Amino acid sequence: MAALQRRLVAFAAARDWGPYHTPKNLAAALSVEASELVEIFQWLTPEQSARVMEQPESAHRVADEVADVLAYLLQFCEVLGIDPLAALAAKIERNEARFPAPETDVRHSSE
Amino acid sequence: MAALQRRLVAFAAARDWGPYHTPKNLAAALSVEASELVEIFQWLTPEQSARVMEQPESAHRVADEVADVLAYLLQFCEVLGIDPLAALAAKIERNEARFPAPETDVRHSSE
Amino acid sequence: MAALQRRLVAFAAARDWGPYHTPKNLAAALSVEASELVEIFQWLTPEQSARVMEQPESAHRVADEVADVLAYLLQFCEVLGIDPLAALAAKIERNEARFPAPETDVRHSSE
Amino acid sequence: MAALQRRLVAFAAARDWGPYHTPKNLAAALSVEASELVEIFQWLTPEQSARVMEQPESAHRVADEVADVLAYLLQFCEVLGIDPLAALAAKIERNEARFPAPETDVRHSSE
Repeated sequence: MAALQRRLVAFAAARDWGPYHTPKNLAAALSVEASELVEIFQWLTPEQSARVMEQPESAHRVADEVADVLAYLLQFCEVLGIDPLAALAAKIERNEARFPAPETDVRHSSE
Repeated sequence: MAALQRRLVAFAAARDWGPYHTPKNLAAALSVEASELVEIFQWLTPEQSARVMEQPESAHRVADEVADVLAYLLQFCEVLGIDPLAALAAKIERNEARFPAPETDVRHSSE
Repeated sequence: MAALQRRLVAFAAARDWGPYHTPKNLAAALSVEASELVEIFQWLTPEQSARVMEQPESAHRVADEVADVLAYLLQFCEVLGIDPLAALAAKIERNEARFPAPETDVRHSSE
Repeated sequence: MAALQRRLVAFAAARDWGPYHTPKNLAAALSVEASELVEIFQWLTPEQSARVMEQPESAHRVADEVADVLAYLLQFCEVLGIDPLAALAAKIERNEARFPAPETDVRHSSE
């Protein structure tokens, strides 16, 4: 991921995109790409949405939008000095503490 | 990243969230989290937006939303069997071919 | 609608919000409010989503987000001098020309 | 506005779009259109964003996205039986009570 982030930074730098890549603009671009992903699914039933990877055309479109979302997320993190994996690890730990899993029957039966 | 993805999958499985985690719902959740990131910046000037990490409170809020976006992106990829890093690498390669960088050496040599 | 638009303009003017209400910022705020509407529905089945007005709490929440979306849409149109009803009428006319309805009478008469 | 709402309803009914027009799907479509409006502004400075109506091409694009947002908002309200103008009027009244304007008269009288 770090290597991809460096390539994105070099790609933007070679095109002098720095002035456009404010955190505000990159957050907007990220949300626009996330909406393009939503657009693929907006009229599908839940069942149809589970089968989007079966057709090469929609599979490619979905993977392409995933790439765009990740690209802007990494560029956003780059300009603000955020480590996205560390942020996610911290969040998961907080969530595991805040929302304990239900104690399933199997676990109870051993008591 | 693969380890975080496994923890997210286990976290959702322990809470029986599988039926909710259709690709359509996860794409919507991803876009909602991306918008919560936009919300932090919506009234800021470009200059103010570059300084959001200077205050602990807004820094934490930004990192937290980044974590949420990445969490839903990874869960979306998980249910559809997409490798997000491979998708991004493929996209960068296509973009490097489609949008060649300006040939700065040539331009400079003509000056 | 024009009266509500004037009240929104007066409300913002009384609080000196003019400098924040650039078209760019208002478009972002509009999309953030639209996402808050999506958030209400993100984990619901299509059937559950059709019943959100049956509970007073979710009914109020939905109406409140509709108001926010409309408020920012009207303020966006105000700062750019756009008449939203004229824009919609023009769009409907274009769509009616571009996507003719299936000719159900003709089809039935041939049976 | 009521007349436009009726035309939208008739347009969708003539194409048998009813099953697709769940509140959940229409909320998603609304947010996708709002993001297409954001996309027009995402790399513009605040100053550039104030001049989007000066060029016919971008003026048309902006008005077109405004129409799309309003179209989905009206269709969403239609399927859920919400009166968007009444919702907005109620919201403005709540906001005027919650966020009183700075008392300019008092301030002026002390000068």
